[in-house]
Amino acid sequence: MNLTGEMLIGQKAVKGSRDPIQAINPATNERLEPGYAGGTQAEVDQACQLAWDAFDAYRETSLEDRAVFLETIADEIEALGDALVERAVAESGLPQARIQGERGRTCGQLRMFAKTVRAGEWLDVRVDPAMPDRQPMPRGDLRQRHIALGPVVVFGASNFPLAFSVAGGDTASALAAGCPVIVKAHAAHPGTGELVGRAIQAAVKKCGLPEGVFSLMFGSGREVGTALVSDERIKAAGFTGSRSGGIALWKAAQSRPEPIPFYAEMSSINPVFPLPAALKARGEEMGKAFVGSLNMGAGQFCTNPGLVIALKGPELDAFLKAAGEAVEKSGAQTMLTPGIFEAYEQGVQSLQESGKAQEVARGQKDESPNQCQAGLFKTSAQDFLSSEALQGEVFGSTSLVVECADEAELKKVAEHLEGQLTATLQMDDADLDAARKLLPTLERKAGRILVNGWPTGVEVCDAMVHGGPFPATSDSRTTSVGTAAIHRFLRPVCYQDLPEGLLPEAIKNDNPLKLRRLVDGKREQ
Amino acid sequence: MNLTGEMLIGQKAVKGSRDPIQAINPATNERLEPGYAGGTQAEVDQACQLAWDAFDAYRETSLEDRAVFLETIADEIEALGDALVERAVAESGLPQARIQGERGRTCGQLRMFAKTVRAGEWLDVRVDPAMPDRQPMPRGDLRQRHIALGPVVVFGASNFPLAFSVAGGDTASALAAGCPVIVKAHAAHPGTGELVGRAIQAAVKKCGLPEGVFSLMFGSGREVGTALVSDERIKAAGFTGSRSGGIALWKAAQSRPEPIPFYAEMSSINPVFPLPAALKARGEEMGKAFVGSLNMGAGQFCTNPGLVIALKGPELDAFLKAAGEAVEKSGAQTMLTPGIFEAYEQGVQSLQESGKAQEVARGQKDESPNQCQAGLFKTSAQDFLSSEALQGEVFGSTSLVVECADEAELKKVAEHLEGQLTATLQMDDADLDAARKLLPTLERKAGRILVNGWPTGVEVCDAMVHGGPFPATSDSRTTSVGTAAIHRFLRPVCYQDLPEGLLPEAIKNDNPLKLRRLVDGKREQ
Repeated sequence: MNLTGEMLIGQKAVKGSRDPIQAINPATNERLEPGYAGGTQAEVDQACQLAWDAFDAYRETSLEDRAVFLETIADEIEALGDALVERAVAESGLPQARIQGERGRTCGQLRMFAKTVRAGEWLDVRVDPAMPDRQPMPRGDLRQRHIALGPVVVFGASNFPLAFSVAGGDTASALAAGCPVIVKAHAAHPGTGELVGRAIQAAVKKCGLPEGVFSLMFGSGREVGTALVSDERIKAAGFTGSRSGGIALWKAAQSRPEPIPFYAEMSSINPVFPLPAALKARGEEMGKAFVGSLNMGAGQFCTNPGLVIALKGPELDAFLKAAGEAVEKSGAQTMLTPGIFEAYEQGVQSLQESGKAQEVARGQKDESPNQCQAGLFKTSAQDFLSSEALQGEVFGSTSLVVECADEAELKKVAEHLEGQLTATLQMDDADLDAARKLLPTLERKAGRILVNGWPTGVEVCDAMVHGGPFPATSDSRTTSVGTAAIHRFLRPVCYQDLPEGLLPEAIKNDNPLKLRRLVDGKREQ
Repeated sequence: MNLTGEMLIGQKAVKGSRDPIQAINPATNERLEPGYAGGTQAEVDQACQLAWDAFDAYRETSLEDRAVFLETIADEIEALGDALVERAVAESGLPQARIQGERGRTCGQLRMFAKTVRAGEWLDVRVDPAMPDRQPMPRGDLRQRHIALGPVVVFGASNFPLAFSVAGGDTASALAAGCPVIVKAHAAHPGTGELVGRAIQAAVKKCGLPEGVFSLMFGSGREVGTALVSDERIKAAGFTGSRSGGIALWKAAQSRPEPIPFYAEMSSINPVFPLPAALKARGEEMGKAFVGSLNMGAGQFCTNPGLVIALKGPELDAFLKAAGEAVEKSGAQTMLTPGIFEAYEQGVQSLQESGKAQEVARGQKDESPNQCQAGLFKTSAQDFLSSEALQGEVFGSTSLVVECADEAELKKVAEHLEGQLTATLQMDDADLDAARKLLPTLERKAGRILVNGWPTGVEVCDAMVHGGPFPATSDSRTTSVGTAAIHRFLRPVCYQDLPEGLLPEAIKNDNPLKLRRLVDGKREQ
């Protein structure tokens, strides 16, 4: 497929008229063709109107039709073959195997949501039958189902050109819920975006759905994104990216005459707590494994372990020694974009210049463009607590070890943390009491708690929570990965005394969708 | 029980030091003793710290203990006996039977949440067992449960001194979820607030819970409320009241360094659509029934039918004639507060002075204080669409009938409406097609859709949705009435590879709470 540099507005391909964005191969700093000219307010209007026009029909498609649509998108993405992998590798600097894996995850995710849609539990059907003879007042027939919120805007992420972008988790869950989607592609990988966008566009056509179910827009800066989020026809948005970008768009969403849910996944440093017995038993091994997690994808994961918090002492020293050696051996890796590389360098520099963090080790240098040199630093709990410079996220393969004098200080550091996507305990049996004492804090701070694993690697499944208290996300009540993500794009509606002929399928008397309804307080089998 | 005019901070009773509020019997404009001196920042701090200290223990109480606590609150409220009813009548001007009914609803609601807590479905337990041999990567053991958000602030409502106030729906659902609650009592009924607050305080003690599980504060103006919502230890808030008050507090909640969910139920005019066949068959009867709903509680319900939208013609004329006659016969009723009465008078006056609404009928006058004189007005669709003055809520027994030239115009008016708590169809079999055409619009606009009933009277049950798109509420994804309200105060947490000894009860291997878990994608029986 030849890339055209066009936006996809419904079934049309439209050339933008604003400053074009052009992908850069971060491994070479070479500009990739074609340019993607940005959209204007007129195209934002068109995409929003098409999405709005599609909404009522799309949200009432049958569960089977919607599931088939999601599966068709997966098929169409796979049908893109090597062209997709090659372009994504060129635009992201990520290794081919990683992109292939991410494609598998993306398509698996779409098929998983198809299964979720078919199962229909997300409709959360509740029926309270009429009680016409109840005293002192009769009760009407009351039924509840969930319906889609409305057209949704999805912002592609820099660090997952497939799984968190045009057909990523936000798009899949919104489409599953019955929401038309307009994607604002990430400027780092527009060609990947166009390819995947055309796959979705083809699936819309194959499935005979209204064209406004999907559009794809480009734009440099925040103009197009802000216009989309501010449009009254948009009823929710999903975002994965930086804290400043997320908060700016979140504010736009809250400043509308009608505020809307804005799901931003933003900033997380994913603390790891090696507990004393585990540290003593296997500090060295742990140090190596930690660096393995730290280096994954050049540290460009939302769940990258950017912080280690432990008791100071010879056991932690052994961990630091092993981790330091592993860092020193770490080869440089290409970062996603020149901008991310620059921010990483600045982040490391501000640790170095803070006067409060000691350098433990640095990884290997490479003079090729945009190479992430890994880093390990340490600091004291007191310095950490008193210095905001040490508490921010450094996006990339650098981590900070916080040495605590005692359990009380360690608890203090834990309580001081902002909201996180994950928190990890490294523990042995003898650490159980210490872990129990820490657990309530970690539950309050993080969306996912791990034991003896590493936070990188987010399983796409029913039980996953990829979310957490602010600023990890803007809404801790939800997840952006896993089947529960569908709930972000739904709202309940109650139907009182509707005649059978007017009732939506999901709540008809004879339960044609065979859902496990909650009827009169009892769950149907 | 003697009223002391004190706030309840945990198990203590504390006299405030700011300007006292004093209830006014709206039927007589007589001031009621005692005065309730407002709290200061120091007391806000104390209540928040106690709530914070109580949180970790309270959220992990067993389902049974928490259910018994809710039932004990209901018992303690009932044990207040006639004193509660008398005080609530005096402070609200509402009839005794209404207050007795509301007490029943309040206690029933607490007991319903006890049942919901015991059933444990709200934990939404999901288990994805480990797959150690999976290729290319093993899967860990992943489990999800929901935990409480944190301490919650509840704002008492003017119009339901019991069911939406100190021990009302927001308090019941937050306590059910495992959140400590601080109530900011409504200034209109502080004595009722103190009585109910002392009942909760006694229940906390009887159940041996940490004292910070409940506090009750007073304050005139918005100072105490804003301080509570802005406190970093508060993690969510529930509010029922005016649009301006709700939006001001919502903004405070969003302006925090860590924004929090703020559930405001604010403004709804609850459109009623009498469809042609129904109007023809029973316009007169319908007009009378409509006025019955309009007059309930002097129109001071969030679900009061403030708008009727129908096709112009002799059928609508018959409805208008019958409704007008019923309005003319309507006796005046005491409104809740002098402030609400004044706002009602102004609202009616602005309809009269709009030059775009004709008076159809007014109810009987009464020169006693704060008497609501019912009102019925009509306007054309064109005037309605072009005049913001006609589109706002008039809180009280006044309604506006919008005459539409044809179906297209009627649809246009429906599409033009803001978000609503309810939308009502009056229809006969012959109206089915017209109803089907209107339904998608109503689903987008309202949280509850009724057929051939009236929106006043909100059933407390599983299927109820008392919510809806902005500005009916600040968050259409939830309900403030019914068992689903518990979800407002919860967030998911995922546990990866935790040893059995560290797992919370709800997600232990042998399922000791006997929950219907989602295990490996299958729902357990």
